[in-house]
Amino acid sequence: MAVDQYPSRNGQQAQIMERKDPIVHRNPAFSEGPLREKDLHSFEENGYLMFEKLFNDDEVSIMKSELQRTMDRNREREENDVIKEPGSNEMRSVFEIHKDSGFFQALAKNERIVKAAEQLLGSQVYITQSRINFKPGFKGKEFYWHSDFETWHTEDGMPNMRALSCSIVLTDNYEYNGPLMLIPGSHKWYVSCPGATPEANYKSSLKKQETGIPDNDSMSWLVDQANGRIDRATGPAGSVLFFECNTMHGSAGNISPYPRSNVFFVFNSIENKLQQPFSGQSPRPEFLANRENIQPIQPNKDRLQNFSHRIKRQ
Amino acid sequence: MAVDQYPSRNGQQAQIMERKDPIVHRNPAFSEGPLREKDLHSFEENGYLMFEKLFNDDEVSIMKSELQRTMDRNREREENDVIKEPGSNEMRSVFEIHKDSGFFQALAKNERIVKAAEQLLGSQVYITQSRINFKPGFKGKEFYWHSDFETWHTEDGMPNMRALSCSIVLTDNYEYNGPLMLIPGSHKWYVSCPGATPEANYKSSLKKQETGIPDNDSMSWLVDQANGRIDRATGPAGSVLFFECNTMHGSAGNISPYPRSNVFFVFNSIENKLQQPFSGQSPRPEFLANRENIQPIQPNKDRLQNFSHRIKRQ
Repeated sequence: MAVDQYPSRNGQQAQIMERKDPIVHRNPAFSEGPLREKDLHSFEENGYLMFEKLFNDDEVSIMKSELQRTMDRNREREENDVIKEPGSNEMRSVFEIHKDSGFFQALAKNERIVKAAEQLLGSQVYITQSRINFKPGFKGKEFYWHSDFETWHTEDGMPNMRALSCSIVLTDNYEYNGPLMLIPGSHKWYVSCPGATPEANYKSSLKKQETGIPDNDSMSWLVDQANGRIDRATGPAGSVLFFECNTMHGSAGNISPYPRSNVFFVFNSIENKLQQPFSGQSPRPEFLANRENIQPIQPNKDRLQNFSHRIKRQ
Repeated sequence: MAVDQYPSRNGQQAQIMERKDPIVHRNPAFSEGPLREKDLHSFEENGYLMFEKLFNDDEVSIMKSELQRTMDRNREREENDVIKEPGSNEMRSVFEIHKDSGFFQALAKNERIVKAAEQLLGSQVYITQSRINFKPGFKGKEFYWHSDFETWHTEDGMPNMRALSCSIVLTDNYEYNGPLMLIPGSHKWYVSCPGATPEANYKSSLKKQETGIPDNDSMSWLVDQANGRIDRATGPAGSVLFFECNTMHGSAGNISPYPRSNVFFVFNSIENKLQQPFSGQSPRPEFLANRENIQPIQPNKDRLQNFSHRIKRQ
């Protein structure tokens, strides 16, 4: 087993340590991507990048209808990769959509997002996790602060910080419908969390995370480092948020009438494949952390509209 | 018993009806107040008014230290008017602070706020309810949408819409620490709520409201009427929010490190005294709805700094 550079949940006190990996993994072979130097610099400083309307309204309409189809197709399934609301049959998430042999598989290869991921991670990339999320208005649940990397490292064996999340927002994100909040600069520090990981933690943590929760002192410290800033990923439908795997983020509940839905891909460097979980426990299921038949993505030039016509002809 | 102009929770379906009372109760005898015509107009249109830093930083410091003293003095009390967090001894609210014979009694009479209340309500005013609130960071609870008047009418017997809340914010309110959200214009409509009122409802409703909750269709309709707007009462410490008794408001949880505290007075017109609750049930306790020895407030010219010195000399 590899050396654990980012220990967490091993019974110790909460602790903040410096990040040991580059943020932008600059590689001349991937420097021709779509991002400008100021984008790279902003990602290094803030730990995220938001592009307004990277997908246009027609493309968003297609995505929304495909999201609805996927939801409908999965409504009667009782599998782990379909997350329903506790106590009801309402769907919240469907995982592994990048393997659906259809629209979302093509979207996951779309060069607009893949080439940006390659440029930031300095290598070819693959997807470790994907999902569509539908969060209703009025009763959208809070998601407490967390670093994805803390979980992916501890529970999935992701060795280094060389991954990022890409969220394509399909509904307008306002200040008042529970937008993702991010602590700028928090990705430069690793918050080692107290506690230990229960077996099969993922079965409850997808609904409400109870382990891998940063302590209040660490959170206050991170916000102080950011001079008190807490950023919100607001923007119109079609916007795309890239955020670094270790950026501390969370969201308040949503009592507004406005639902929120998004498509979510986690791109990992092909040089950062998952190993054994550093918790020493069994790996999480494939739908949460892809390990099998890992191949780098070949970016897809197809325009989404064209693909949509192909779907309709099937 | 008076005719119930605003029936609610009497087993019927949710229903939206027009407001039957004026919003600004214009009365020449009280037209010399501090508010300008454009303030009155804005209150009529939006159902609230926010004044940035109506109290200065020194005054806010005094208020915060008085809040702390009041909290400390009440920490060991186990009375209904002291609201603690479920499962812990952490204090959230202390009620009836306008009867404390000290700082908050004087603040409740401060002419900066009382004369504005008189001008809006077109009469002398008294306080039906007051409290200080302390909401911690990281775990501030959500408060779902509600109209205060719906509760005050049904549970307290407030006959007409001729009251307002005055919230003096003692901490900066940001977009990301769970600010009060208001639906502009919602005060022009009355949402009659389904269900019925349980006996002694207040014992649980102060922690989490379960009755008098507007239905989703009515909420969506109100937001549509506002052209989709949901306003947030953000602003620096010392700001004062006046909001009409029937303005639909709520707040998301607060996962930020920033706590929130405020002083809260409900001013009612002396011509709108509480009657028997329209639910037909027993009135709520005095600390939630003052009925005894009601006298109009005589506005107090004292500067708060002066008063603070008096307190220190006691």
